[in-house]
Amino acid sequence: PLAAAQTAETLFVNDLGGDIKGDGKSSGAADKVVEEIRAKGGKAVPNYDSVEDGEKLVQTALDAFGRIGKHLSYESSFDPHLYDIIHRVHLRGSFKVTRAAWNHMKNQKFGRIIMTSSAAGIYGNFGQANYSAAKLGLVGLSNTLALEGVKYNVLCNAIAPTAGSRLTQTVMPQDLVDALKPEYVSPLVLWLCHESCQENGSLFELGAGWIGKLRWERTVGAIIRQKDRPMTPEAVRDEWEKICDFDNATKPRTIQESTSSLYEVLSAVDQGISLNRTS
Amino acid sequence: PLAAAQTAETLFVNDLGGDIKGDGKSSGAADKVVEEIRAKGGKAVPNYDSVEDGEKLVQTALDAFGRIGKHLSYESSFDPHLYDIIHRVHLRGSFKVTRAAWNHMKNQKFGRIIMTSSAAGIYGNFGQANYSAAKLGLVGLSNTLALEGVKYNVLCNAIAPTAGSRLTQTVMPQDLVDALKPEYVSPLVLWLCHESCQENGSLFELGAGWIGKLRWERTVGAIIRQKDRPMTPEAVRDEWEKICDFDNATKPRTIQESTSSLYEVLSAVDQGISLNRTS
Ligand SMILES: NC(=O)c1ccc[n+]([C@@H]2O[C@H](COP(=O)([O-])OP(=O)(O)OC[C@H]3O[C@@H](n4cnc5c(N)ncnc54)[C@H](O)[C@@H]3O)[C@@H](O)[C@H]2O)c1
Ligand SMILES: NC(=O)c1ccc[n+]([C@@H]2O[C@H](COP(=O)([O-])OP(=O)(O)OC[C@H]3O[C@@H](n4cnc5c(N)ncnc54)[C@H](O)[C@@H]3O)[C@@H](O)[C@H]2O)c1
Repeated sequence: PLAAAQTAETLFVNDLGGDIKGDGKSSGAADKVVEEIRAKGGKAVPNYDSVEDGEKLVQTALDAFGRIGKHLSYESSFDPHLYDIIHRVHLRGSFKVTRAAWNHMKNQKFGRIIMTSSAAGIYGNFGQANYSAAKLGLVGLSNTLALEGVKYNVLCNAIAPTAGSRLTQTVMPQDLVDALKPEYVSPLVLWLCHESCQENGSLFELGAGWIGKLRWERTVGAIIRQKDRPMTPEAVRDEWEKICDFDNATKPRTIQESTSSLYEVLSAVDQGISLNRTS
Repeated sequence: PLAAAQTAETLFVNDLGGDIKGDGKSSGAADKVVEEIRAKGGKAVPNYDSVEDGEKLVQTALDAFGRIGKHLSYESSFDPHLYDIIHRVHLRGSFKVTRAAWNHMKNQKFGRIIMTSSAAGIYGNFGQANYSAAKLGLVGLSNTLALEGVKYNVLCNAIAPTAGSRLTQTVMPQDLVDALKPEYVSPLVLWLCHESCQENGSLFELGAGWIGKLRWERTVGAIIRQKDRPMTPEAVRDEWEKICDFDNATKPRTIQESTSSLYEVLSAVDQGISLNRTS
């Protein structure tokens, strides 16, 4: 079985145990998870540090196991006015924990990182400006870590789950909170953490037992500029329909693919320009 | 003409004028832009505050004009190790300037906001973990502001430009820096800022005279769960190809579209479950 709780693998369960606004701390949340895992015959160790103390948290894990397998941050906050706490916990916290674990993962040539993003970031959500920013920021972080880790077998993906929880309880009707169980999210996390899973740099939406994958789609767009003529906002306006037309859209996957199309535009418009395409 | 420099409109030009790492400050960068606008017969006022002082910056603009039109932040930093400065300037700075301008824009029932994202965030880029996170975070922020502003005619979009600049000079060959002129980026910005432009909540890539638009594409995916049975990581693994198959992919545009598909999954799997779909 792939589930860690059913294997010899020991899980490191970090949770600050603060209240819904991120204040305070307690051992309750992490202990509860650890108990559940142990009840199912698994091994787990609780930790109550904040993800903001990334180094400390990872050091504790290393002291306990001598090895970092995967980690998964489940921290959260929905208050739209608290930019700093939201960023410190969601984005900077995930960054700090990952940075602290990074070299250990590279050295042992194995690591699986899952960033918990949100549909609020992917599509935007009324009243959640900070949260959307932090959560889509995690996808940006994941995109780059996926590139940096791959040659060390350190893979990174992002998920945007929907599940009933302490947080969604405040915004979802109770029947949905009950129906959208967190147990419908964890199997994807376990699979993405498994050593036989080679998925990397991807983003998944999931909930209710369904899982889908996302990617960018880009219009063919329009070349607005003519050689040796100034490019004008009027020309942009006049080509707007073409710029926004998704017929025959491409699916660029890397910054290299994205930039190489710009080189082609340069050669097409400024014929004779000689470009050194080594970078 | 749409170009502000050619109209009666006065531009507020903010630039800290620090060095490439974000240290120091000077009036040079903003003054240079102001001079260019004036030389073309336009009106402009320089400002040298950091975007981190969003309130102060917006107050200065209000004192000068009594009105906020549009704003555009061109701040940057490429050092991958400076998480805090990158976030403070790119993401938190854009957030603070926008937040300070927000109510003024709402009250005057006009505003156009352009967030400067980057292909590094969209696709990931080796060595730019912080920057990728901050830059895709701006798209998340833009997604939500687009929803919150629309009823006040305050529209928000994001752009991912490629152009030769002080920064790209350090990573691009000189012939590309020369060829990819910033003048090929500004016409889109001017159009998106125009009152006749109704585009909102979109993301554009551009450079070299070309402009394209991006959106999310999502697989039909797979329902992994069966009624009253535990959902397992093995089932996820076994359906992996289907989960990742982009044939017949959908293009969800809102969090409501995204979540409503989860409700359908719940009804399909747990027949008889009655859901209150008001939220
Ligand atoms: N539930 C959903 O539908 C949903 C949707 C999108 C994204 N998410 C994301 O999933 C994750 C889990 O959220 P949830 O819905 O289970 O909420 P939750 O409140 O039930 O869980 C959040 C947990 O994070 C812990 N925490 C908070 N600050 C911490 C810190 N500084 N260090 C360590 N732990 C900390 C809390 O103690 C709590 O147990 C979050 O990242 C959230 O943004 C959830
Ligand atoms: N040039 C590209 O190809 C490219 C690609 C993707 C994104 N971008 C983005 O475009 C924007 C412009 O970058 P650029 O390439 O023109 O770089 P640049 O260094 O030429 O311009 C950045 C400007 O921001 C100013 N600045 C820095 N910190 C500031 C602060 N705290 N407050 C106010 N102003 C500040 C600097 O003084 C400088 O003039 C940046 O947001 C960058 O991330 C550029």
